[in-house]
Amino acid sequence: MKAIVISVGDELLSGRTLNTNLKTISEFLQSFGIEVYRDYTVKDDVEEIKNAIKNAVKDADIVIVTGGLGITPDDVTRDAVAQAFDRRLIFKEDLYSEIEQKMQQCGVTITDHHKKYGFVPEGFGIIKNDKGLAPGYYLKQNGKLFIVLPGPPHELQNVLSNAAKLFESHGRVTTKTVKTFGLKESDIVERLKNVMDQLSPIGFYPIVPGMVDLKLTIRGDDEHKLTRELNKKLKILKSRIGEAIYGYDDDTLESVLGKVLRESHMTISTAESCTGGLVANLITDVPGSSDYFKGGVVSYWNEAKMCLLGVSDEILNYFGAVSEPTAVMMAEGVRKLLQTDVGIATTGIAGPTGGTLEKPVGLVYMAVSVRGKITVINKIFQGNRTFIKKQAAYTVLDLARRKIREYLDETDRCRIG
Amino acid sequence: MKAIVISVGDELLSGRTLNTNLKTISEFLQSFGIEVYRDYTVKDDVEEIKNAIKNAVKDADIVIVTGGLGITPDDVTRDAVAQAFDRRLIFKEDLYSEIEQKMQQCGVTITDHHKKYGFVPEGFGIIKNDKGLAPGYYLKQNGKLFIVLPGPPHELQNVLSNAAKLFESHGRVTTKTVKTFGLKESDIVERLKNVMDQLSPIGFYPIVPGMVDLKLTIRGDDEHKLTRELNKKLKILKSRIGEAIYGYDDDTLESVLGKVLRESHMTISTAESCTGGLVANLITDVPGSSDYFKGGVVSYWNEAKMCLLGVSDEILNYFGAVSEPTAVMMAEGVRKLLQTDVGIATTGIAGPTGGTLEKPVGLVYMAVSVRGKITVINKIFQGNRTFIKKQAAYTVLDLARRKIREYLDETDRCRIG
Repeated sequence: MKAIVISVGDELLSGRTLNTNLKTISEFLQSFGIEVYRDYTVKDDVEEIKNAIKNAVKDADIVIVTGGLGITPDDVTRDAVAQAFDRRLIFKEDLYSEIEQKMQQCGVTITDHHKKYGFVPEGFGIIKNDKGLAPGYYLKQNGKLFIVLPGPPHELQNVLSNAAKLFESHGRVTTKTVKTFGLKESDIVERLKNVMDQLSPIGFYPIVPGMVDLKLTIRGDDEHKLTRELNKKLKILKSRIGEAIYGYDDDTLESVLGKVLRESHMTISTAESCTGGLVANLITDVPGSSDYFKGGVVSYWNEAKMCLLGVSDEILNYFGAVSEPTAVMMAEGVRKLLQTDVGIATTGIAGPTGGTLEKPVGLVYMAVSVRGKITVINKIFQGNRTFIKKQAAYTVLDLARRKIREYLDETDRCRIG
Repeated sequence: MKAIVISVGDELLSGRTLNTNLKTISEFLQSFGIEVYRDYTVKDDVEEIKNAIKNAVKDADIVIVTGGLGITPDDVTRDAVAQAFDRRLIFKEDLYSEIEQKMQQCGVTITDHHKKYGFVPEGFGIIKNDKGLAPGYYLKQNGKLFIVLPGPPHELQNVLSNAAKLFESHGRVTTKTVKTFGLKESDIVERLKNVMDQLSPIGFYPIVPGMVDLKLTIRGDDEHKLTRELNKKLKILKSRIGEAIYGYDDDTLESVLGKVLRESHMTISTAESCTGGLVANLITDVPGSSDYFKGGVVSYWNEAKMCLLGVSDEILNYFGAVSEPTAVMMAEGVRKLLQTDVGIATTGIAGPTGGTLEKPVGLVYMAVSVRGKITVINKIFQGNRTFIKKQAAYTVLDLARRKIREYLDETDRCRIG
């Protein structure tokens, strides 16, 4: 099945807005095994939209138009659709009274313009919009499916999911995203070289260097067969790159770290120099993180490292702020200061200035202390200031997760022994 | 002048990659007064690309194709272009030897496949690529301009800027982005209602609620006239929404705050509860921020608020962690702890849980202390956890900037008095 998307809106062509709706629609259709084959992005112009619709209907089984369903003068998609299919726009009393009610509840001052919401091309079905005023429309004709969706992303997502039943006859596809950290994309490709056939189709989505999402797609109708196929593929991945897999689908390094902490009833604190609060910010992006994250220190100046974290004058003078001993003392210092089980620390040179031959921009020391058991590593990251901060933050989150697991495994072993 | 863009790549249609190149090209062409009128996004398929080119050349003065110039089997744009214009692909010895040199310098293992880089459609000019291997091509024919650019964003930007001379005959346009905080988009529109004609064309770009960028565009050939026109428009904006304007073009709330601190030789520290490190992270995104940012505390648990910031037990018990007195004590506490001129603090409920009838999710108290002169405000922000964090962080950064300015103005007045 081939689908063509028509994205309507001057703002998409002027560079004001990135076309995220295309991504949303693609991923939605993929879950039904339908491929988006082409996209036309056109202006808010009746002729442009009409021509795009006519061309798309010729070439595709499914055509989805998005945007231009509002009530300002430049919202002309309704008219263009009606003209393209040679139909009148009909005012639907019951549809409009529902929309009117919504507007009253939200305190909208209703004018005659709002009536536009009640007009639908003759013979089109209506798709509910729970997140906004403009509903979607659809038409099934000659074995083809034609759908019109509102443009605001959260409304589009809602109306699209309300349209799911229109696609269900096309069979099901399961996708699973396998999230990895610690291997480069090229290393993963190398390791999977001679099992690629068994994994296909597999997508590689590098997020930052060392962080790659792998997307598996399995097609079929039988739930059992889907699960069996998926598990077979996951087993292959685990055997080849298992140590890099940190989670699946919506997992993030910070959510997975949170899960480990919660399960082990441990608390954590952060001491950040070059990441400047990003590590704490990521940790606290996870709902419920206040259960295990007690707090953190951003020790940008040396006096903060000394007076809050107890990094000694001698260490700072002899080894420097960007050094292994400083990172270790920061991690241990914050752990003791806030009385947590785990303390993590970063210190490095985010640039663009401050680098030397010996300690270049991008050099970051990262330390983790799990109840006093300390690990410290260093990396030289590439890129600009914010990109270096990001890579350092992810690396220390991943290190913390691994080291807590190791600690727990060891404790378990000792108990058994 | 009308331009059509053809974006080539399966990854754009599968939802893997957002089409940021379209935005780059649009903004580039706008600086020459050229409008992108339509975009075709097509698969890596010779027929698809060829058909899109043929349709585009009919309708537009300028056609830009991007993507598919690599050397893997799915890179077929070269062939499609040659076929669309009915030309052969010619191997350019001198072009290839230059590329070969680059590959050797980068340690690429050269194979026969790399020869593809040396092929150019007959009669096309070459546009240099300083950031990668695949050059761009162009053809001027029948008063129309046809350009082919590589797909990787940083290469596209480079080749596009190397193509600037091809557009210069089309006149110049100056744009200026005016950055505002503290007014809703609808408020700004209302205030500008009867001067809209004098400002036109003006674009409104809401970033988060209360943060709106305004883009002014001035067209013309004469540098003096451009400047005069621009200043006239800026004067109107300042008279209507002056208090909300915090900067221009690449300014951010955090960079502007940094500028004020640097100019006044003041230092700053942060005490964050609900924003969880985001405020410090934004401040430290600015290169050179280590000159004025000493450090910060993320006091997620009450014991961190007490032991690090000196928020008293009584205050926390009587008013609660999310309260005006707590915010004030946090700002003053961190200022004293790290001995800075300015201390800023946030405490609130980021959600999704933890809200009550009296203190709902989204309620945030924000405090600023400038050498002991304290301001505290509260807001109820809408949206999910990360969105609430973001709005609170921006609001406190804006508050800090305003309050430091006020403090400086008052000090000046006192001195004069």
